[in-house]
Amino acid sequence: MNAIIRPVKGTRDFYPPEMAGRVWLYQQMRQVSEQFGYQEYEGPILEPLDLYAAKSGEELVEKQSYVFQDRGGDKITLRPELTPTLARMVAQQQNQLTFPLRWWSFGPFWRYERPQKGRTREFFQWNIDLIGDPSPQADAELAAIAATFLKQVGLQPNEVQILVNDRELMDSALKTLGLTFEHRAAAFGLIDRRDKLTPEAWQTQASEAGLSPTQIDGLIALLENTGLWQQSDSLQQFFRAVEWFGVADYVRYSPTIIRGLQYYTGTVFEAWDTAGDFRALFGGGRYDNLVGAVGGRPVGAVGFAVGDLVISLLLQSLGKFPPYAGTPAEVFVTLFDEQHLEAALRLANELRAAGIKVASQYSPAKLGKQFKYASQIGARFAVVLGPDEIQRGQVAVKDLHTEEQTSLPRAELAGYLTRPNLT
Amino acid sequence: MNAIIRPVKGTRDFYPPEMAGRVWLYQQMRQVSEQFGYQEYEGPILEPLDLYAAKSGEELVEKQSYVFQDRGGDKITLRPELTPTLARMVAQQQNQLTFPLRWWSFGPFWRYERPQKGRTREFFQWNIDLIGDPSPQADAELAAIAATFLKQVGLQPNEVQILVNDRELMDSALKTLGLTFEHRAAAFGLIDRRDKLTPEAWQTQASEAGLSPTQIDGLIALLENTGLWQQSDSLQQFFRAVEWFGVADYVRYSPTIIRGLQYYTGTVFEAWDTAGDFRALFGGGRYDNLVGAVGGRPVGAVGFAVGDLVISLLLQSLGKFPPYAGTPAEVFVTLFDEQHLEAALRLANELRAAGIKVASQYSPAKLGKQFKYASQIGARFAVVLGPDEIQRGQVAVKDLHTEEQTSLPRAELAGYLTRPNLT
Repeated sequence: MNAIIRPVKGTRDFYPPEMAGRVWLYQQMRQVSEQFGYQEYEGPILEPLDLYAAKSGEELVEKQSYVFQDRGGDKITLRPELTPTLARMVAQQQNQLTFPLRWWSFGPFWRYERPQKGRTREFFQWNIDLIGDPSPQADAELAAIAATFLKQVGLQPNEVQILVNDRELMDSALKTLGLTFEHRAAAFGLIDRRDKLTPEAWQTQASEAGLSPTQIDGLIALLENTGLWQQSDSLQQFFRAVEWFGVADYVRYSPTIIRGLQYYTGTVFEAWDTAGDFRALFGGGRYDNLVGAVGGRPVGAVGFAVGDLVISLLLQSLGKFPPYAGTPAEVFVTLFDEQHLEAALRLANELRAAGIKVASQYSPAKLGKQFKYASQIGARFAVVLGPDEIQRGQVAVKDLHTEEQTSLPRAELAGYLTRPNLT
Repeated sequence: MNAIIRPVKGTRDFYPPEMAGRVWLYQQMRQVSEQFGYQEYEGPILEPLDLYAAKSGEELVEKQSYVFQDRGGDKITLRPELTPTLARMVAQQQNQLTFPLRWWSFGPFWRYERPQKGRTREFFQWNIDLIGDPSPQADAELAAIAATFLKQVGLQPNEVQILVNDRELMDSALKTLGLTFEHRAAAFGLIDRRDKLTPEAWQTQASEAGLSPTQIDGLIALLENTGLWQQSDSLQQFFRAVEWFGVADYVRYSPTIIRGLQYYTGTVFEAWDTAGDFRALFGGGRYDNLVGAVGGRPVGAVGFAVGDLVISLLLQSLGKFPPYAGTPAEVFVTLFDEQHLEAALRLANELRAAGIKVASQYSPAKLGKQFKYASQIGARFAVVLGPDEIQRGQVAVKDLHTEEQTSLPRAELAGYLTRPNLT
């Protein structure tokens, strides 16, 4: 026997229980997206490297992306994120589309990172974006969607918080500290890396970036100034709208949020578990220059992306991830013996025609073994059609939850299996 | 302005209308899969090249796959098909899984082919497999699932047919013609390529493969022998079960079906449009050695895969592909003016809380323009909350289908917008 061929490192096999979890998340995302009137779309999984080169940020493209040459010699990337694709698609049909666009998507992405808790190389992301509405209320709608999603999957405001900042506001504040353009760009990077470094390492990097001790102290003070948002008219409008959306308990200001991607231009936000046990649950913000950067006419946009991993780990740790329900088959039709194959198949068919989900046995086996199988895969009922039952026009039914066994007229079977008071 | 960055050749952008079509297909596949008690799973999109090398067939791996080296130097493939992944996953958890397995999946695949009608490099496939049941009835269940799917999407037996053959039966028949092992393998390839070549080119290839004129004549006669299945006990059982499943009108024997993939061992089938306008809609069969070939213990399996492209083209050509319905938002909440932003947002919220899907306007614009937008995106209603309405405790509603405009008490709005007799 050969060794079993190993999967590629960092990829994931979705066996039915894991897949059910992924589909459940997708469903939650769909529900919330549609509640706010968003249309589902999807881009290709392969994109030209050039698409990311402009705006996604050096680290993401050069260090974390799967890049390869196809047979025609073109440099292709397995998409590490969706926003550049969205910008490209919008630019491509800019004259045909009706703005503003409300679009959402759920699909796979790749980053060449060291696999660890909450981080695999292949992961799934919900992307949701409002394109063509420059108002702070549009930003607030995205925060409201994020909060509605958190609420819907059962997370309370004492468990998760959406932290919001504004890059323009931070840029002004850094100017006030006397930072040049280059130093401000460096400071954005420093703010983003702050929770990944020790305070000492962070201070060293700040000095190396050319910030003076006074500027570093100013930056530290800035990152503690939770009242800074009051200096921003657009954040004031944002928080007022968040209140009207009824999600103020999930959303608050934090000067520490800046985001790593280079294309953000205004509001930025991230969701974090309040216990601090996990990485950010998701992040997003306003990016008003990206459609222009990929060749379209400039159009403002705001959106966010939620990976499937961290949110799943958090929900699991809080006991809020739904348990796996097993097979979709409500009924397992057993095989009494080879002579009753036709009877069993026709019965299964009859039940399916009545809208019941049914799996069948085809190879002869002891009934006890068949009941055990049906129970293991998670079916609720097993039915038996043997010579006695056929003679009496009946079917035997075993309820695999209660272990009760009963016989009833065949004509009543479908009704019995789908009775509404079934617990 | 820069030129718009072009997508990778052969990939597809799913704008909302195209995505709605893909999601509709996925839903049909889910419904049929679940009706027969199949559980959803999914494999990674990246697999080691070795996984395909053994059994998928030279052409698929060497000529049609996207292969690249990752940053660690490993040879990685963008999966061209799912069955080897399925075999790997089964082999990996063979001791924990409860057989037989009924599994289905829907996801993206890549083949490096020349893009043409019904063939793109990135495509989607429904895979459905029954693993661990060696019976001909298991094969018939898969044919029944295929037929049920065709029926469900609205295709009639006079429009599509599932053609079935058995590789063992063909192998015996070719032995009877005096073909050696090598010649039989060549003959399988010739049968598979028959509709891609002119009769002359096909004859030439047959000669070049070493078949004698008598053997070539024998092979041609064999491919016209529609009664051949009666020589196979398992095909007899198969067709009997197909009858019991109630799908005999969709399924018939054809000696011309052999399939290109090397791992098939028994029953093979393909679905074709009867008009002959398209390539095969899908194909599948029994593969009893693949789990063993990837390192597991041998276990028999049968399944098929349906690509999204050809079936969509066929449905479109017959006018059976559902039209795009537009935004999921049932209601568009307009903005009377900036002073009424809070009122509009709170109203939208109230409707969402009542289970209605709502999109909102945030930037001031003429009401006529807002109605036009709501209508263009496909919302059914637009609501207006201006000073008059607020004073009277009312909301104005415009039905965008009938153009009717009405005013009603705010408390009655949700009920009005979701009334069951809405046409």
